Amino acid sequence: MANTFIDEDFLLRSVTARELYHGIAKKLPIIDYHCHLDPRMVAEDHKFRSITELWLGGDHYKWRAMRANGVAERYVTGDASDWEKFEKWAETVPYAMRNPLYHWTHLELKTAFGIETLLNPRTAREIFDQCNDQLANDPGMTARGLMRRYNVEVVCTTDDPTDSLEWHKKVAESGFECKVLPTWRPDKAMAVENAASFRTYVERLEVASGKTISNFADFADALQNRHDYFASLGCKLSDHGLEEFYAEEFSDVETAEIFNKVYGGKELSASEIRTFKSAMLYLFGVQDAEAGWAQQYHYGAMRNNNTKMFNLIGPDTGYDSIGECNTAAAMAKHLDRLNSAGKLGKTIIYNLNPSANEVIATMIGNFQDGTLAGKIQWGAGWWFLDQKDGMEKQMNALSLQGLLSRFVGMLTDSRSFVSYPRHEYFRRTLCNMIGRDVEKGELPFEGYEAERIRQMVADICYNNAKGYFNF
Amino acid sequence: MANTFIDEDFLLRSVTARELYHGIAKKLPIIDYHCHLDPRMVAEDHKFRSITELWLGGDHYKWRAMRANGVAERYVTGDASDWEKFEKWAETVPYAMRNPLYHWTHLELKTAFGIETLLNPRTAREIFDQCNDQLANDPGMTARGLMRRYNVEVVCTTDDPTDSLEWHKKVAESGFECKVLPTWRPDKAMAVENAASFRTYVERLEVASGKTISNFADFADALQNRHDYFASLGCKLSDHGLEEFYAEEFSDVETAEIFNKVYGGKELSASEIRTFKSAMLYLFGVQDAEAGWAQQYHYGAMRNNNTKMFNLIGPDTGYDSIGECNTAAAMAKHLDRLNSAGKLGKTIIYNLNPSANEVIATMIGNFQDGTLAGKIQWGAGWWFLDQKDGMEKQMNALSLQGLLSRFVGMLTDSRSFVSYPRHEYFRRTLCNMIGRDVEKGELPFEGYEAERIRQMVADICYNNAKGYFNF
Amino acid sequence: MANTFIDEDFLLRSVTARELYHGIAKKLPIIDYHCHLDPRMVAEDHKFRSITELWLGGDHYKWRAMRANGVAERYVTGDASDWEKFEKWAETVPYAMRNPLYHWTHLELKTAFGIETLLNPRTAREIFDQCNDQLANDPGMTARGLMRRYNVEVVCTTDDPTDSLEWHKKVAESGFECKVLPTWRPDKAMAVENAASFRTYVERLEVASGKTISNFADFADALQNRHDYFASLGCKLSDHGLEEFYAEEFSDVETAEIFNKVYGGKELSASEIRTFKSAMLYLFGVQDAEAGWAQQYHYGAMRNNNTKMFNLIGPDTGYDSIGECNTAAAMAKHLDRLNSAGKLGKTIIYNLNPSANEVIATMIGNFQDGTLAGKIQWGAGWWFLDQKDGMEKQMNALSLQGLLSRFVGMLTDSRSFVSYPRHEYFRRTLCNMIGRDVEKGELPFEGYEAERIRQMVADICYNNAKGYFNF
Repeated sequence: MANTFIDEDFLLRSVTARELYHGIAKKLPIIDYHCHLDPRMVAEDHKFRSITELWLGGDHYKWRAMRANGVAERYVTGDASDWEKFEKWAETVPYAMRNPLYHWTHLELKTAFGIETLLNPRTAREIFDQCNDQLANDPGMTARGLMRRYNVEVVCTTDDPTDSLEWHKKVAESGFECKVLPTWRPDKAMAVENAASFRTYVERLEVASGKTISNFADFADALQNRHDYFASLGCKLSDHGLEEFYAEEFSDVETAEIFNKVYGGKELSASEIRTFKSAMLYLFGVQDAEAGWAQQYHYGAMRNNNTKMFNLIGPDTGYDSIGECNTAAAMAKHLDRLNSAGKLGKTIIYNLNPSANEVIATMIGNFQDGTLAGKIQWGAGWWFLDQKDGMEKQMNALSLQGLLSRFVGMLTDSRSFVSYPRHEYFRRTLCNMIGRDVEKGELPFEGYEAERIRQMVADICYNNAKGYFNF
Repeated sequence: MANTFIDEDFLLRSVTARELYHGIAKKLPIIDYHCHLDPRMVAEDHKFRSITELWLGGDHYKWRAMRANGVAERYVTGDASDWEKFEKWAETVPYAMRNPLYHWTHLELKTAFGIETLLNPRTAREIFDQCNDQLANDPGMTARGLMRRYNVEVVCTTDDPTDSLEWHKKVAESGFECKVLPTWRPDKAMAVENAASFRTYVERLEVASGKTISNFADFADALQNRHDYFASLGCKLSDHGLEEFYAEEFSDVETAEIFNKVYGGKELSASEIRTFKSAMLYLFGVQDAEAGWAQQYHYGAMRNNNTKMFNLIGPDTGYDSIGECNTAAAMAKHLDRLNSAGKLGKTIIYNLNPSANEVIATMIGNFQDGTLAGKIQWGAGWWFLDQKDGMEKQMNALSLQGLLSRFVGMLTDSRSFVSYPRHEYFRRTLCNMIGRDVEKGELPFEGYEAERIRQMVADICYNNAKGYFNF
Repeated sequence: MANTFIDEDFLLRSVTARELYHGIAKKLPIIDYHCHLDPRMVAEDHKFRSITELWLGGDHYKWRAMRANGVAERYVTGDASDWEKFEKWAETVPYAMRNPLYHWTHLELKTAFGIETLLNPRTAREIFDQCNDQLANDPGMTARGLMRRYNVEVVCTTDDPTDSLEWHKKVAESGFECKVLPTWRPDKAMAVENAASFRTYVERLEVASGKTISNFADFADALQNRHDYFASLGCKLSDHGLEEFYAEEFSDVETAEIFNKVYGGKELSASEIRTFKSAMLYLFGVQDAEAGWAQQYHYGAMRNNNTKMFNLIGPDTGYDSIGECNTAAAMAKHLDRLNSAGKLGKTIIYNLNPSANEVIATMIGNFQDGTLAGKIQWGAGWWFLDQKDGMEKQMNALSLQGLLSRFVGMLTDSRSFVSYPRHEYFRRTLCNMIGRDVEKGELPFEGYEAERIRQMVADICYNNAKGYFNF
């Protein structure tokens, strides 16, 4: 049966919403400035074995839903066949109504495969076969083909400083019309909780940079060397995954001593760990500001909560959740420290606990300095908040406390080549919010102001990101 | 004047909502799997002296509203007459518009007494007399009669491990068609803040279990003995009232030593208290998992904030409020510890501070293991959140982060025999939410999917609880 | 072009909402019981140099928006001309759509100046000239004229205990029909973080009170002396700006010792600071209760986050944001301590982080004692929350957990003589909320109940404040 629930006016509940979406937002290219795509798959123009690989290969949102639905792990991340896994997913989908997966699943089927049938146990085999047939036989259904289909102009991947970026180079050399740029993610350079792992990481950094590292100054130099290398390949952003912010007092001497201790194989105290992280966050900020990059902070996740499953299948497998912390004071202190030194560059803060929405919405205002519109940004609804409700709350709080019109907008944060409909989802949600305001008489929509609103939509969907990151 | 505001379509704002409620939800029996009813009142089929006893005898929601309205304590919990108290309540009701009490009051008058007149000072006497007349003369207006009237199938009370459960036995023996089952609530077994009270409690436990308790192992055995006894009388759930979660490191040796110290009459340090509570929470979890029970955690209340009134009229009299804590890390650690040991059974977490909604909604996903759909549950809006807004927020966050369709649904948490309209309130709210989604094109409602939605409503209202708890 | 978006039914989305607003709320005088107006400007009936002085002279909301829009500081707080600053503001306004500034700006232009043209770069010059012309030539466009225009009956300013209140006296003597009353704000009397500043303050207090201060008892006496003086000039309220609540244990001896230490020029430890603040908060509460005043707590701001700008342009310039803290336990303990001593008077708590809304909404219920309806109040949406969304969330949570009908309503907290449309904004929002409930069948609106609703609106807009504060 044809699905009429996700029609062309999906989520667009007013005339103005529809005008804004169909007239403006829909047509704009996608700038996906933060994701976890594997650049090798782009370089090699990866062909997908099956819809199961494409959908269930690395999607911990779906895995969580399946487990909550009583599906045994064999069918989630285990050794069941592609069809068996897909079948279990198809059984789960109707139980996922009201979860964003229900919308994403059908938006992806529709926009990637042209399939408007709803996925459920009765339609599973037909959809499985149809998708696999397209993946096997349609030359447009590859990694690059999908990026073209979704009108993707830029993607920024997420990369360790020691990464050779060889696949980014190959993509660039190939003349692929979509830019695939690296992002500097030096989390391991501050992960001093485990002395042995940190030592190993420093050694990898030595190899990557070609610099001998025997003290903290060498360490910083080696990082700068890689930072320059990333810049030379078009990197414009850094990214940091933090449980919370760190802004302890530290001196160069202390930092150097802590480095020596941990590099020498000794475990650090909790206080030393915090001090070192504070110093590294500061160093990262300085390096980014000097390069003119935007720094991104993703904070607030509580990771690897299920030790049993961590030991069985490792990290990033669906056992993370939203943390609770009082980190606003440390965040302010860290940003203030950079700002006082003239080293606070473009900054994007992403929070995971929506109860901190207003904290962040007002925090960014503390450091706007009139040098660049929207210099300090509050990032789009992240991870668990990357759905209509999360997006609306983020955009509403940003609107109330700052300037929505300067927002750099959506990103997928995804590992998947069919997650681009999330930009469509975001754009529909944005247009619907604004349309609702107009309809309720809370925004004017005539003459100069109507033009401003149209421009605002185009800016949030595309122009702001393009200008802000200098793509 | 007849009240038309709570008509049959109360809260049902769309055609789909009305179809779902009237076609499905309304007719289903009530499973009230967590309440504070007095089983003796059921056993003796209690007859109520007056509407004042029924309504104002133990309802701290109403007491708080009266105090906020400037009513002196004599009319709240003092020695005023039934009529005087009722009159003060009737004066307060019109001032309570927009408070859930306003809806509950009129839903209860309508469904228990068939009275559709709105309560206010002008109608107070008439309603008082009418209610009292029915309570005196209508043989259906007793404890059991009211449970029958509301189509109650199961209720689970809240009981201390030392309770003899004699009234539960009498109810069971009486052949009353509604199951009245005990719930294991061992809060006092971890209440080591006061050495003397704890000692007294241990002695009561010795009597109840018939076991001599001279060390921690004996203590655990005596609890297990009572646990088995509860199970033999149909107990399927435990319940724990916690300010926050405790997940300190502990060893058997430490636990035993702390037990000896407090049992020996010495006050414990704050750290020892936390350690002991951590050990007890773990033990409770193991005992429940081994019995196949569901464990419930009600956390986050800040109790007895008004010392003056506590000294005058004791606990649970309307001086508690919503606490603030960062307990997610401890909660995760506690659950992980049970899970790693293979002892994490069915679990329901209830939170009181809505700013933790998303924390809990994502926390439960960390421990879903595919053995049972919805094994780890986020409980329905609790206490202060047990109203339309609280219910909607809980169900929306659960929907977005997990599977609403696997939710075990509503409970009253009440001491009252006329609080069952809260299930009606919940069901109307649920149907309205889903109906709104359908109306907005965010859910399909044809063929297979319409059936799924109908089934989901029936499951959340009745089937899920029945299956989950094995009633 | 005429602006039709802010028409007479702005924000009023139902027939009932319009009836309540136009029939009742609109006509009532304004009681602005907490603001930061300069009483001298009232005494001298200040004439404004330009719309720039009136609008941009001290409004950090606008400054933040301009900085976020990329406007250089010279045009914000620097030496640019009135026109240059206004022009930059006019450029920012269209980018501030969805921010409350967008509504406030146009409400103020309309209600103060009769200008319905929307402000944008094309209309900026015309509006600038028109406003300045009125300010120069219309005798009604002065400080007093504006207060008359907005039907202001009472304002309460914010004043240090050492203030002579000479301007309040002059206003009172002048026969100006609007009461301009002082408010007791003794923040500096507990600001012991800096020994030297505290010493200076104590010396100022000596001068103001005419009392020698050589120990804590003298200090308390001097404060009481000024408290009496404030009372003699009509003061009815105190106000406290707190980062969080302080409720440490303290004894008279400790307090006296800490006073001696800091007064003697020694810096205090963090623990001594908290202890002293706890003692002062208690003392303030006692003094207020004995005088029959209402005490106000504004808590939760994180101030002066941008050190660079603080050093350049000082405090209260737009670098504050919403803090994160777990202060509910301390708040409860502080209030309980006063209550136990019979010294908890009328109290209003304002919170800044909306994630504490339900905490406060339930906290106030702990201390309602039946002596005065609504004795403990949760203050209206404050600072960053002083907009439609913030107001609605505050009133909804208050409704659900307490009695909206007893709410003392809106205040501007403003330094501006044209901020009174925020009362209009509040009243429209209130009427709209209630109208929506009626329309949805969640409130009755006939007979007695309709009268109650009309009365409730009048009470929240005017009568409750008048009665509560004894104006």
